[in-house]
Amino acid sequence: MKRNSTEPIQITEVCLRDGSHAVAHQFTVEQVRAVTRALDEAGMHYIEVSHGDGLGGSTLQYGRSLVDEMKLIEAAVEQCSQSRIAVLLIPGIGTVHELKQAHSLGAKLVRVATHVTEADVSAQHIHFARELGMEALGFLMMAHSAPIDVLVEQAKLMESYGAQAVYVTDSAGTLLPEEVRARVRALRSSLSCEIGFHAHNNLSLAMANTLVAIEEGATRIDGSVRCLGAGAGNTQTEALIAVLQRMDMHLGIDLYKLMDLAEEVVAPIMHRVPEINKGSLSMGYAGVYSSFLLHAERAGKRFGIDPRDILMELGRRKAVGGQEDMILDVAASLHKNQ
Amino acid sequence: MKRNSTEPIQITEVCLRDGSHAVAHQFTVEQVRAVTRALDEAGMHYIEVSHGDGLGGSTLQYGRSLVDEMKLIEAAVEQCSQSRIAVLLIPGIGTVHELKQAHSLGAKLVRVATHVTEADVSAQHIHFARELGMEALGFLMMAHSAPIDVLVEQAKLMESYGAQAVYVTDSAGTLLPEEVRARVRALRSSLSCEIGFHAHNNLSLAMANTLVAIEEGATRIDGSVRCLGAGAGNTQTEALIAVLQRMDMHLGIDLYKLMDLAEEVVAPIMHRVPEINKGSLSMGYAGVYSSFLLHAERAGKRFGIDPRDILMELGRRKAVGGQEDMILDVAASLHKNQ
Repeated sequence: MKRNSTEPIQITEVCLRDGSHAVAHQFTVEQVRAVTRALDEAGMHYIEVSHGDGLGGSTLQYGRSLVDEMKLIEAAVEQCSQSRIAVLLIPGIGTVHELKQAHSLGAKLVRVATHVTEADVSAQHIHFARELGMEALGFLMMAHSAPIDVLVEQAKLMESYGAQAVYVTDSAGTLLPEEVRARVRALRSSLSCEIGFHAHNNLSLAMANTLVAIEEGATRIDGSVRCLGAGAGNTQTEALIAVLQRMDMHLGIDLYKLMDLAEEVVAPIMHRVPEINKGSLSMGYAGVYSSFLLHAERAGKRFGIDPRDILMELGRRKAVGGQEDMILDVAASLHKNQ
Repeated sequence: MKRNSTEPIQITEVCLRDGSHAVAHQFTVEQVRAVTRALDEAGMHYIEVSHGDGLGGSTLQYGRSLVDEMKLIEAAVEQCSQSRIAVLLIPGIGTVHELKQAHSLGAKLVRVATHVTEADVSAQHIHFARELGMEALGFLMMAHSAPIDVLVEQAKLMESYGAQAVYVTDSAGTLLPEEVRARVRALRSSLSCEIGFHAHNNLSLAMANTLVAIEEGATRIDGSVRCLGAGAGNTQTEALIAVLQRMDMHLGIDLYKLMDLAEEVVAPIMHRVPEINKGSLSMGYAGVYSSFLLHAERAGKRFGIDPRDILMELGRRKAVGGQEDMILDVAASLHKNQ
């Protein structure tokens, strides 16, 4: 593969953050310790540890964590001799207070995540993280739902706040390879900072899209071991490392160790095998947020509506994270129009 | 997507043949009936029904079928108002006798499968199928394991015998997208018949590779609903149809019906969720045959060898289907050299 970048590729393992959704935020200290230790031994670059919805996400609305995430972050940091611990922060859910605490526990990097059109709310947190001496990256969620010029303008805002990389985040797993190509290419030609890519596998395109992003010069790449992420999961980390090695790209991560920890440490703690089922495929096809699925299923049951029709309508209305209350409205109006 | 062909794309659903491996050949008449009826209602083009190793595969060596495959073929044909039933035949395992019987029961198409360097053994069966009035296609297995000029030469042989399409069959799920591109492109420029592509998802590349194959002009495409195929499964049919629709390619297959049957008819009969685990990823990385996995695990246990090392060595030796006996030799020699 001819890459449009000479920067090294750095992998962020998200199974302990995105995967938090898949285990209903029930990670234990022991599990986080075991997964982090094994990832560190395999040479993983970054390991993200946070509630699925980022710092401060443990609420009734987003789901209570079994264990205070600060305890999980602390446990993860203790296991690392080479990997760096990252945290996710969605302004409005997490605060600078929690960021400061995570930093004091040893987190080295924060990804400040906003909806693709709301980069301006990331300014304070990116500034603050840089002042703390943390790496601060911007994470533009639902990147499919804005035109490319808007995506570029929003990414430039994040860069202007001090973001050292900006991610194209395919939260709904809905982008097609050529859509990823166009987005990463546009960002590469307009920004000086690094570009990142975060995939979901709802359309079975996570690997295809990740390779296209790398080809176009993205250097910050997310994966989840054993696909342990929301919905259909993310780009499967150990498969990605295998593919990149087959392409003669060696990132300093030990493939066999990664395969072993996937099988022996991660698989046993999974509640279910992430798969492309009716729900996750509907999300990818409709282009809606992963966290909507359960709500749509509940609302569908209540109003006698196919959850897919609710998701398609939410996609058309460009509903964003936090607008879960819209789901009942949509179901009710679809019910009325039956 | 700009396709290098104007021929319509035709999908062959392989969950009732490749998926036979994943259920240890235990399909019942009722299951085949239910799956076929639902696929027919969704407008599937072809549905392949055979033992996982093709007609006549029900043996001690390849695994006994619970139900005589002729009964399954008969049941499938009865359910079809529009879909055509296909069968797989590997010369040496299946014979013209079984092909004749399948045809008399209503099978309309046969894929005659050989190792990529052994197309010559398909001549008799392709001729015979054409004489019967069946569609006859060639299926070059382990297509990664021969140089492209050999692949082209072997495909030309199949075409000369009367094959109406020749498949690039990525039996080990090991091809990279650019390797698929080069192979399909070479075949397109050298053959007049249609080109097909059959993927396995061991490296999480089944969808990526299938899209590249379609782009390069492949028109006969395989998928398995819910990934119900050997190892990590195949290109997931319902995800493929969703992706193609997102690309404005409409094949006359009803996406919602396909999603429903995946969830309600196929998922309940699966023994496990196909996933990219240590075994299937090792196979894709090493480039060895799916059916080797269980043997390698057994041999590994017996000789105290990591099954991955056995698979890697088999890949280096270019072991082919039918050479399962080589696995014990490899394990023994690795054990000796420990």
